[in-house]
Amino acid sequence: MHEFELINNYFQKLSKKSPGALNLNDDVFFDKKNKLVVSVDTYTEGSHFIDFKKPDLVIKKIIRSSISDLICKGVKPKYYFISGSGNKKSFSKSNLSKISKALNQEQNKYKIFLSGGDTVFSNKLSFTITAIGFANDIVYRNKAKINDDIYVSGNLGDSYLGLLVLRNKLKLNHQLQKYFINQYFMPNIQLQLTKKIKKFANTSIDISDGLLADLDKMINNQKFSYKLFLKDIPISNNLKKLLDLKKLSKIKYVSNGDDYQVLFTASKNKSGIIKKIASNCRVKLTKIGLIQGISKQSIIVDDKNTQISLKKKGYLHKF
Amino acid sequence: MHEFELINNYFQKLSKKSPGALNLNDDVFFDKKNKLVVSVDTYTEGSHFIDFKKPDLVIKKIIRSSISDLICKGVKPKYYFISGSGNKKSFSKSNLSKISKALNQEQNKYKIFLSGGDTVFSNKLSFTITAIGFANDIVYRNKAKINDDIYVSGNLGDSYLGLLVLRNKLKLNHQLQKYFINQYFMPNIQLQLTKKIKKFANTSIDISDGLLADLDKMINNQKFSYKLFLKDIPISNNLKKLLDLKKLSKIKYVSNGDDYQVLFTASKNKSGIIKKIASNCRVKLTKIGLIQGISKQSIIVDDKNTQISLKKKGYLHKF
Repeated sequence: MHEFELINNYFQKLSKKSPGALNLNDDVFFDKKNKLVVSVDTYTEGSHFIDFKKPDLVIKKIIRSSISDLICKGVKPKYYFISGSGNKKSFSKSNLSKISKALNQEQNKYKIFLSGGDTVFSNKLSFTITAIGFANDIVYRNKAKINDDIYVSGNLGDSYLGLLVLRNKLKLNHQLQKYFINQYFMPNIQLQLTKKIKKFANTSIDISDGLLADLDKMINNQKFSYKLFLKDIPISNNLKKLLDLKKLSKIKYVSNGDDYQVLFTASKNKSGIIKKIASNCRVKLTKIGLIQGISKQSIIVDDKNTQISLKKKGYLHKF
Repeated sequence: MHEFELINNYFQKLSKKSPGALNLNDDVFFDKKNKLVVSVDTYTEGSHFIDFKKPDLVIKKIIRSSISDLICKGVKPKYYFISGSGNKKSFSKSNLSKISKALNQEQNKYKIFLSGGDTVFSNKLSFTITAIGFANDIVYRNKAKINDDIYVSGNLGDSYLGLLVLRNKLKLNHQLQKYFINQYFMPNIQLQLTKKIKKFANTSIDISDGLLADLDKMINNQKFSYKLFLKDIPISNNLKKLLDLKKLSKIKYVSNGDDYQVLFTASKNKSGIIKKIASNCRVKLTKIGLIQGISKQSIIVDDKNTQISLKKKGYLHKF
């Protein structure tokens, strides 16, 4: 069973009396009256992270992934709660010191505060992070408008390259390995966007499962399609060089998830303000496509405007 | 390492900038400015529940255990978030139907609303519940006053008897087995107390690890001791009959945890209002001891005022 099937069939009806739950079809819970925004995510060893050899980096990754849910909605994360399940080895004194230090660094970087949690014994290592922020309004999913431009923040694909290196599926020189691994563990999430995104975005999501998978999710209740231009999808100079050198196909490396960049749509008349804010906030914001009517097919095209066919859109959670 | 050691050594300092975290030494997080109260708890198979043969009952138990943290502080729970890690077998269609139905029953009984969560694949079954409520103030730990009376709600011990039956460590007739097992899975948590407890309680906690273990925790930063009267500790008629019949020692059956009753202290001059509120709210509130100065030893005495010695105070979380 796919995750969305599980949610739709067994849990969505239970959330009906909680309007802030947004039908369990958005990145966050938003109680407008109390201005409360909440996100809950669980990360397990072997699935969301490979192993726990670098506890500090794993912790950084899951904290950033968690607060990314709030950031993409235009909400500044404030409090986080961490519930860890692990054994003596995972929670050794040395590992706990590293976890504590890493959390402290993330706290200072993103101005978030550890506010509670739980620790339980388990031979399967996992963490659940609850992230909380406050906001008068948020950017929702499924609010795209026809002819909207589609934008993405930062660069895509670096994190996936890091994963390939960590899984020994790609050999690179030391410097490049280090670069991609760092991008995998410490994605450049865009905190500085939170104050501004509501000024221009009609709808948004963060990219965790993959560009195309998350684009589908962002408009899953809307009768729209999209057109993406492969050449416009932003990638780092390091990834560009690598694709050229090894003659790899760009499309296979930009929609695999773990990017934690913000994907959003905006009306065409916002392009000026988007450029200005991108420059002022020092955030890279790139137009990569547009929203079309349902009569058209969702496609991604190459330099010659030829449609590219895809086997896999990103990560699918299954039971 | 004990859980409190882990928290004190590695995490408490990270919470310093979040006053609502209450030094990670209370049952909940309380942001007074935003009136926000949060509790996060993780439950794993084999530790917090024996197995998943009765998914509906396990779900009821963990929901009640979670909202009990808010209730004991005088806070009405409103939203809950459930993050489940499990495999195809745990999250089969039949189990998901039972989980969904059980959640719906708990929602109606306690007026709480599913507001979000996560589902991830794992061969180790566990759930993390985030419970949220709103309040202008809460009843804190470590606010007992010298000479306060110590009270407890409901009855203690039934849940432990249920656990012994489930573990095949105790054979009883069918009717009694059913009674104790039901108390284990569906403790009588005291929602109706939430509105009233702030009128009389100086300090409070809910009993999850055991009467004595949680009493210690409730005043762990205070230089106080306590005296408890074994004969006054409230037990059900069924437990009373059983202890008499099998000539079992009461003290061995009343401090083993999973009761989810409210333990609190109150000034002596509140005894009148406590009686009145207990009667109006139909909650059993029993005086079981008193708070003493540090010069005295914490003791529990029997009918003849003789001190009872104890080997184990309750459940200790270790890594």
